[in-house]
Amino acid sequence: MTGSKKKIVIVGAGFGGLAAAKQLAKSDVEITLVDKRNYHLFQPLLYQVATADLSPADVAWPIRGIFSDQKNVRVALTEVQSIDRENRRVIGDTASFDYDHLIIATGAKHSYFGNDHWEEHAPGLKRIVDATEIRKRVLMAFERAEVAAAEDEQRRELTFVIVGAGPTGVEMAGAIAELAKRSLAADFRQIDPTSTRVVLVEGGPRVLATMPEELSAKAKKSLEALGVEVLLDTMVTDVTEEGVETSSGFIASGTKIWGAGVMVQNMANWLGVETDRAGRVQVEPDLTVPGHPEISVIGDAAHIPWKDGTVPGIAPAAKQAGGYVGKRLAQIVAGGAPSSEPFRYRHQGDLATIGRNAAVIDFGWAKLSGPIAWWLWGLAHVYFLIGVRRPLFVMLSWFWSYLTFQKGARLITGLRPLFRADRPDGAVRENPKKNAA
Amino acid sequence: MTGSKKKIVIVGAGFGGLAAAKQLAKSDVEITLVDKRNYHLFQPLLYQVATADLSPADVAWPIRGIFSDQKNVRVALTEVQSIDRENRRVIGDTASFDYDHLIIATGAKHSYFGNDHWEEHAPGLKRIVDATEIRKRVLMAFERAEVAAAEDEQRRELTFVIVGAGPTGVEMAGAIAELAKRSLAADFRQIDPTSTRVVLVEGGPRVLATMPEELSAKAKKSLEALGVEVLLDTMVTDVTEEGVETSSGFIASGTKIWGAGVMVQNMANWLGVETDRAGRVQVEPDLTVPGHPEISVIGDAAHIPWKDGTVPGIAPAAKQAGGYVGKRLAQIVAGGAPSSEPFRYRHQGDLATIGRNAAVIDFGWAKLSGPIAWWLWGLAHVYFLIGVRRPLFVMLSWFWSYLTFQKGARLITGLRPLFRADRPDGAVRENPKKNAA
Repeated sequence: MTGSKKKIVIVGAGFGGLAAAKQLAKSDVEITLVDKRNYHLFQPLLYQVATADLSPADVAWPIRGIFSDQKNVRVALTEVQSIDRENRRVIGDTASFDYDHLIIATGAKHSYFGNDHWEEHAPGLKRIVDATEIRKRVLMAFERAEVAAAEDEQRRELTFVIVGAGPTGVEMAGAIAELAKRSLAADFRQIDPTSTRVVLVEGGPRVLATMPEELSAKAKKSLEALGVEVLLDTMVTDVTEEGVETSSGFIASGTKIWGAGVMVQNMANWLGVETDRAGRVQVEPDLTVPGHPEISVIGDAAHIPWKDGTVPGIAPAAKQAGGYVGKRLAQIVAGGAPSSEPFRYRHQGDLATIGRNAAVIDFGWAKLSGPIAWWLWGLAHVYFLIGVRRPLFVMLSWFWSYLTFQKGARLITGLRPLFRADRPDGAVRENPKKNAA
Repeated sequence: MTGSKKKIVIVGAGFGGLAAAKQLAKSDVEITLVDKRNYHLFQPLLYQVATADLSPADVAWPIRGIFSDQKNVRVALTEVQSIDRENRRVIGDTASFDYDHLIIATGAKHSYFGNDHWEEHAPGLKRIVDATEIRKRVLMAFERAEVAAAEDEQRRELTFVIVGAGPTGVEMAGAIAELAKRSLAADFRQIDPTSTRVVLVEGGPRVLATMPEELSAKAKKSLEALGVEVLLDTMVTDVTEEGVETSSGFIASGTKIWGAGVMVQNMANWLGVETDRAGRVQVEPDLTVPGHPEISVIGDAAHIPWKDGTVPGIAPAAKQAGGYVGKRLAQIVAGGAPSSEPFRYRHQGDLATIGRNAAVIDFGWAKLSGPIAWWLWGLAHVYFLIGVRRPLFVMLSWFWSYLTFQKGARLITGLRPLFRADRPDGAVRENPKKNAA
């Protein structure tokens, strides 16, 4: 009975995987959407979870809820181990799934350029647990500084280093500077949070390298207005518990955050094809894998030529590719020949935000910066959230933060010890501010 | 300079500790508020985090934010190890604090009646991490059932046992039944979530034992209307990974939640006084510790006689005691003699909710149940949240859930494996619903 329907397996419930599944809503197929998490993550706002503006539930949405009404989709919570290409079968850790067509949409993570041991000291920001871990580290830094016995220890705790000045790095740097200088300013008695140092380290010659130079310059200016130190043309050579070693010197820092590089895992293993240096699959013009017309790769995991380089790893690109592949498969399962049109990426623009009230936007036909850009940035994200998340809540959270400078989600949760075990037993320290007065 | 001011240390930022600190807002004292977490927890709504109705940030509020404007309070994030009563000093793991007056407001946790190894299988609900852990277990039970190969394994995963029919147990049972039968009903393809069994096991003869019998009966009826099986006069004799052994038989269950017993820790050690069987300190009529007029104990940690028993361990009682002690200390530090009035508890009523649209309330002068009681329950909680939390957000979350039956916070987060390691490798299972049709 069920054998007559074509089986489509989609691995990954990010923007690409969802778009593909939705495009197939009216097709007479059996779709299995496989993900190791039970939620779709709205990654563009994840940094706001890390900086305590939003809660995890504001940027993540249970996959099952998204497909409650689309009966040709079943959701499987499992972690893919391998792909049996000969028998057309996806092998997960708790279940396996046969396919007639397979869509790989597993995304990318940050790259430590061969220094994976840096991750422990400088986590990247890709998952909910990353965001809550970074939130915890950022908030705990102020707590540790408040009870630190030595001046240099206090300075170290109040120094935050962000590596990589792409959108995530720029947004994190702006948000941490604002957190310190506005939201937390009145909350401590021994330290002055406004003395916090936020250092953004970038190997290239400008921030937001994919955007026009003019906007890079404006973004840098906005960051500096918030007190962020921007170090360009600066290479990171080591990351330790104590700080970050760079080509222009050592920065003692208690909290390091990684936002550089792109790395795609598993593709060579799973698909038996060659990948580019970032691990991405070099797909055909119709996004299928060379030699495997029944397998498509979309989103960050695919290397798709565009202009002088490749299609960027952003949500709209993944959505477009997912829609393209979904439509193509719908044509195939309907018995027709798929359109021979290759995938064509349409770039809708770039945008990034720098703290409250500043953003830079490049629509191609227009470049914006300043408060108007900020409000447009917010509207754009709320618009993209519609149908996926409760935009009302996100808007209200922002509006509330905007009015009050209170960060509602400023929670340090978890079971591990809050302080490092090697801290010297803290003695009662007199208030340095009072002593100085 | 700072030595001339009286030092007041408050341990615990629950309802009691906050009330005491706020009562001292206008006093010329140096208050140190010590807690091992950085947030105040609105415990009466914590179960809604466990059942995915609310996010952690909806029921917890950073302590520093609460006291931003009260400059005589400094907040210290540290875990108290011991109290040096002779030198009047609280010893924490990262810092220590001298006191002239000490207020202990550390609360209570559930008691496993000497079987602490049951906790691993049946966690209680006292902290944010408990709530997110229980949420994860509840949601993962449905996920595991969806991929379970054997029928009895599926039944076991879809059986939830809650031990203890106090307010937490009753509220959890009602909320899980509703989650399964309404919110998740359309989300699975292999299992039917509406076939979920929720069993509430209570050792005593009725649910909500502290409330009038009439309301206990109504609460039981409301639970049964939601499909909850209520087992009264039933003792739990063992809790294992596989299920719960009771005086009326074994219940195979994948998810067990503990809501029974009360236990206060550390009091005998810290204060060198005798405690009652639950570990609570038998305080003087002015809430001070016998032999230590400079130490007060309030909230769940105190044994305060009332009527035939003791003052109940609920938020209004802790607030009243905190206000009383704060006022008394304000009189003392102002140089006057404290009022000789003993602490008098005023009981304002009991309330509990059973799923959507049903609640029971006992004001003493009035007893309510049904939808009107439910709306009053909601209003009462929103009222208590004012000044502590963003009541608007909680109201909107409720209103949204109410309209849509969607649970916004249905996230399974964390780094540990989602499935138990001992699961048999899952084979692809045909859809039993389809086969049966």
